[in-house]
Amino acid sequence: MAFDASTLSYNADGLLPVVAQDAESGEVLMLAWMNAEAVARTLETGRVTYWSRSRQAFWVKGETSGHLQTLVEMRIDCDRDALLVLVDQVGPACHTNRRSCFYTGVRDGTEVVLSDPMV
Amino acid sequence: MAFDASTLSYNADGLLPVVAQDAESGEVLMLAWMNAEAVARTLETGRVTYWSRSRQAFWVKGETSGHLQTLVEMRIDCDRDALLVLVDQVGPACHTNRRSCFYTGVRDGTEVVLSDPMV
Repeated sequence: MAFDASTLSYNADGLLPVVAQDAESGEVLMLAWMNAEAVARTLETGRVTYWSRSRQAFWVKGETSGHLQTLVEMRIDCDRDALLVLVDQVGPACHTNRRSCFYTGVRDGTEVVLSDPMV
Repeated sequence: MAFDASTLSYNADGLLPVVAQDAESGEVLMLAWMNAEAVARTLETGRVTYWSRSRQAFWVKGETSGHLQTLVEMRIDCDRDALLVLVDQVGPACHTNRRSCFYTGVRDGTEVVLSDPMV
């Protein structure tokens, strides 16, 4: 079946959550948001393109930082209201310069920082 | 720092997106939602507990199906508005009886089913 970004289920703001996973290592790098146009642009360009809720603008991941995300494969979940993108990530995915945004663990009721910024 | 579920950032409905990842294989299994109480219950019980938006009720994953998710570790992202739970998943995570909800890939503009229901 031909894929059409308009057939996905978006929230009231026209967005759906997107999980980015390192296609090689399997590490979950980040969670961000796309609207239908961002989904279409990501597939067209191969550069993962989110919608920035804070800036209310398209956000080509790494366009300013150089830490580009190249799409390896997009996957749709069973309810069609979330996406998984397998990516080739250059450098850190997180704005804190860490590889993954999920660098804080909860262990025995305490928050523990699990990784350092990349150098 | 002691973890307090109320310090996370929730949306207007009091929810945040949660990515469940197989702690062993690294496979991303599903994306669902928690409110602060579901986060606290998950940590207290070790059974991953979501908030069902369709049923507007707590949803102890696998409570009826037997396909329990046991928490291995909870991780918080840099913006504190998304969670990653590393889990031990019994059987399929998806209601279609597939291991992962993300079983549809987009390849060359076409939707392709990548995995079959578990038997």
